[in-house]
Amino acid sequence: MLKLRPMAIDTHREAVAYLNRACAQYRAEEFLALEKIEIVHDGKRLTAILNIVDDPNLLATDELGLSHEAARAFGLPEGSPVRIEHPSRPDSLEAVRRKIQGSILPTEDYAAIIHDIVGRRYSKMEIAAFLVACAGFMTPEEVLGLTKAMAETGHRLHWHRNGTEEIIVDKHCIGGIPGNRTSMIVVPIAVAHGLTIPKTSSRAITSPAGTADTMEVLARVDIGVDEMHDIVDRIGGCLIWGGRANLSPADDILITVERPLGIDTRGQMVASILSKKLTAGSTHLVIDMPIGPSAKLRDHADAVELRKLFEFVGHALGLRLDFIFSDGSQPVGNGIGPVLEARDVLKVLRNDADAPADLRERALLVAGHLLDFDPALPGGKGLARARDLLDSGAAMRAMERIIEAQGPASETLSPGGLAHEVIAPCDGHVRSIDNLRLARIARMAGAPAFKGAGVDLFKKAGDPVRRGEPLFRIHAALESDLRFAADLAERDCGFVCGQH
Amino acid sequence: MLKLRPMAIDTHREAVAYLNRACAQYRAEEFLALEKIEIVHDGKRLTAILNIVDDPNLLATDELGLSHEAARAFGLPEGSPVRIEHPSRPDSLEAVRRKIQGSILPTEDYAAIIHDIVGRRYSKMEIAAFLVACAGFMTPEEVLGLTKAMAETGHRLHWHRNGTEEIIVDKHCIGGIPGNRTSMIVVPIAVAHGLTIPKTSSRAITSPAGTADTMEVLARVDIGVDEMHDIVDRIGGCLIWGGRANLSPADDILITVERPLGIDTRGQMVASILSKKLTAGSTHLVIDMPIGPSAKLRDHADAVELRKLFEFVGHALGLRLDFIFSDGSQPVGNGIGPVLEARDVLKVLRNDADAPADLRERALLVAGHLLDFDPALPGGKGLARARDLLDSGAAMRAMERIIEAQGPASETLSPGGLAHEVIAPCDGHVRSIDNLRLARIARMAGAPAFKGAGVDLFKKAGDPVRRGEPLFRIHAALESDLRFAADLAERDCGFVCGQH
Repeated sequence: MLKLRPMAIDTHREAVAYLNRACAQYRAEEFLALEKIEIVHDGKRLTAILNIVDDPNLLATDELGLSHEAARAFGLPEGSPVRIEHPSRPDSLEAVRRKIQGSILPTEDYAAIIHDIVGRRYSKMEIAAFLVACAGFMTPEEVLGLTKAMAETGHRLHWHRNGTEEIIVDKHCIGGIPGNRTSMIVVPIAVAHGLTIPKTSSRAITSPAGTADTMEVLARVDIGVDEMHDIVDRIGGCLIWGGRANLSPADDILITVERPLGIDTRGQMVASILSKKLTAGSTHLVIDMPIGPSAKLRDHADAVELRKLFEFVGHALGLRLDFIFSDGSQPVGNGIGPVLEARDVLKVLRNDADAPADLRERALLVAGHLLDFDPALPGGKGLARARDLLDSGAAMRAMERIIEAQGPASETLSPGGLAHEVIAPCDGHVRSIDNLRLARIARMAGAPAFKGAGVDLFKKAGDPVRRGEPLFRIHAALESDLRFAADLAERDCGFVCGQH
Repeated sequence: MLKLRPMAIDTHREAVAYLNRACAQYRAEEFLALEKIEIVHDGKRLTAILNIVDDPNLLATDELGLSHEAARAFGLPEGSPVRIEHPSRPDSLEAVRRKIQGSILPTEDYAAIIHDIVGRRYSKMEIAAFLVACAGFMTPEEVLGLTKAMAETGHRLHWHRNGTEEIIVDKHCIGGIPGNRTSMIVVPIAVAHGLTIPKTSSRAITSPAGTADTMEVLARVDIGVDEMHDIVDRIGGCLIWGGRANLSPADDILITVERPLGIDTRGQMVASILSKKLTAGSTHLVIDMPIGPSAKLRDHADAVELRKLFEFVGHALGLRLDFIFSDGSQPVGNGIGPVLEARDVLKVLRNDADAPADLRERALLVAGHLLDFDPALPGGKGLARARDLLDSGAAMRAMERIIEAQGPASETLSPGGLAHEVIAPCDGHVRSIDNLRLARIARMAGAPAFKGAGVDLFKKAGDPVRRGEPLFRIHAALESDLRFAADLAERDCGFVCGQH
């Protein structure tokens, strides 16, 4: 038997075990060839990648080290006696191999694969193999099978605020447009109207801000399921980070492979979004699908194809869906980064004269579609009702109730104190703005790690510009971040300016 | 700047860097999200997976730790000042993404991808994505592009023994049949005939023995390129381990992902084999393709398809190819595992009365095809000539010269002293033997780590058996290995016995 020893190494969601090469009980090299080992204690099992340690100061020859991730997954105290075995290859890898060879897999195979992935029996390499094989070709039925499998591994939320037949609304944007922070306006409008909207959002992983990051500028968002229920029961809605609700543990793992690989396939997107909405207890969902040259959807035909896939899967799961094909040609609002975006959101909710009109109109459009789900509202009146609730200040008051319920932020944050302005190279008009480039500049400036970091846009597409006039300002908290971001903007600022 | 610190951790061909979470110079968490970092010293760069360390005893806050693999690849002494950067995503990953989306890639893309893989700019996850995308679909032209790219990164061997127009012969079996150790008979026959055959072989990775493991029972095989040239110049051939010749660094890396994933696609197989033969300087190659229900090729049509791919790529590279479709329905010879296989080989070379006839005939068939490459030999006389050389003892004498030149093994090894016999469950005949199962049992018994471990077959398909008669004997060096292997055989011994 080996003694368990947690190692202070964070291997970023890959369970790693460490064995001394001079271990007397096991031939380390033999296990190394297979890459993975199975750790066993009293019927409890964990599969982990094997690393070999050659220094007894790091790990004794009778110890088995575990990375943070592995220790957390195994959950046994230091010193526990464990043995290791050749890993039993998960049976579901056979289905992955069939998928690699071009097979169409039945729902049971997706259930088995996702079950094993959530059980941490797949290495990242194996997850990559599964995802890429799926990226090659998936039928709509397969996407449905994957969605169901992902939803089944999640913790399902149930809402009984006004009765069992209740409508639980939600909205989702497929992403890719910086500053498109409509949730923080749509949720207050829906709450003001009286709908139930228990909104969970993600933090940014590769973008400069997620809704959870931006909402956190105003209120606490790291809220567990019990407290969430309490808030939604009282207020009708919330704007929290979904990370503690465990809605889709499968998605949390898959994303750690998709992001670095840049895999963003339609099937995976639909399965990820709809599985989470299903476990979150949503019944009615508006999906915002921005279309533009630097958006995820490049043209209308792309959007229609994706919409059909959403419809097929969503309807099979009993979800009511509505879609908005929106303008994804440039960032929405002026700010990119948590503090700057929160500022824009508050300007819209307060009906400030200088509130960004595009963010206001986009939010009203989404809110209008959401309100149209309410059977009590005459058909087609959703948009007008949403506008009334915003203009009258009812939405702002709803937002204040949400902030109060979640707990207001302890301090008021300002845009990063270090700034650099990027200026127009010539007279003319702004012809286009590249979403991906602006997101990257804001990210380099330190967003979302520094909430005040990001980009503040002074010009949008179509605006006239004069040479030397500022196009946008970069905000940062650190000199090095400001320099990185400014250098990036120097090479290509994402704006194309010129004569018509 | 951080100080470089080699960590005594073997991460099995994945370059890993370690950073203390409390590092003052860099925000570790920010890098962690991207998984990879780029380590820079004076223009030298290395991409590595990032792990975060939370214990200053493992790594100081101003240090950057490197795993064995990373330290070896970077090649700088401890304490060297380095900085880290966000990794520049290798451009070739864009081509991988296109391949995932179903594109047919031009040769330049394969060159760029393989260049970056050999330069260790891909994580295993990214390599898996590339391999699975290729497994989906590859045109013969793409396989050719991949083969060329892999060959170009290898160290090319040149042979000038008898002049520049020389024929350099080689043989290759696509594998999967335990005990099929023909190389150790074919090479001596070819050498006895006067052909040049600088044979490099692999060690077992997931099988119970590679030719290099078995030859090592008789002679030294861990031989560098210079010594190899010297031996081949004198003797005409060799039987060495190819690991030090650096014939295909790309293959060495790809295989670490293919094996655990069980990816074994035709395109990858052809590219791997032919790229190595090309860099090894071979001009004429016989490929042995066993066909059987538990072989890599299940039927004749499978074999024809693979042969055509070999022909297309091989001819474009200027290689002369010949093919043998052989019986892959059961193991060849009696022994499985290095010592037991070496015993069979010597019996054949010595023309012992109890030499396994199937191994002898298989080796003669392959040798006959090889000898038919000799322009000096009348057409179709290869097999008869091979038989003469074997029967006369000329092949055995050639083998003795090879062993002498490489250096005889310092000790004579015997089959593992612990043994367990597996007996027939009923009277009748052996109807079939499962290659994969027998290989697994031999592997569990300790082969090839313990050279004497493995399986010794007493019966082959078609042989009559009586209930209680031994089918095979398992040899092991350790009690635990013997028990594991016996348990495995208990559950399914790989033999099907029954009445006709």
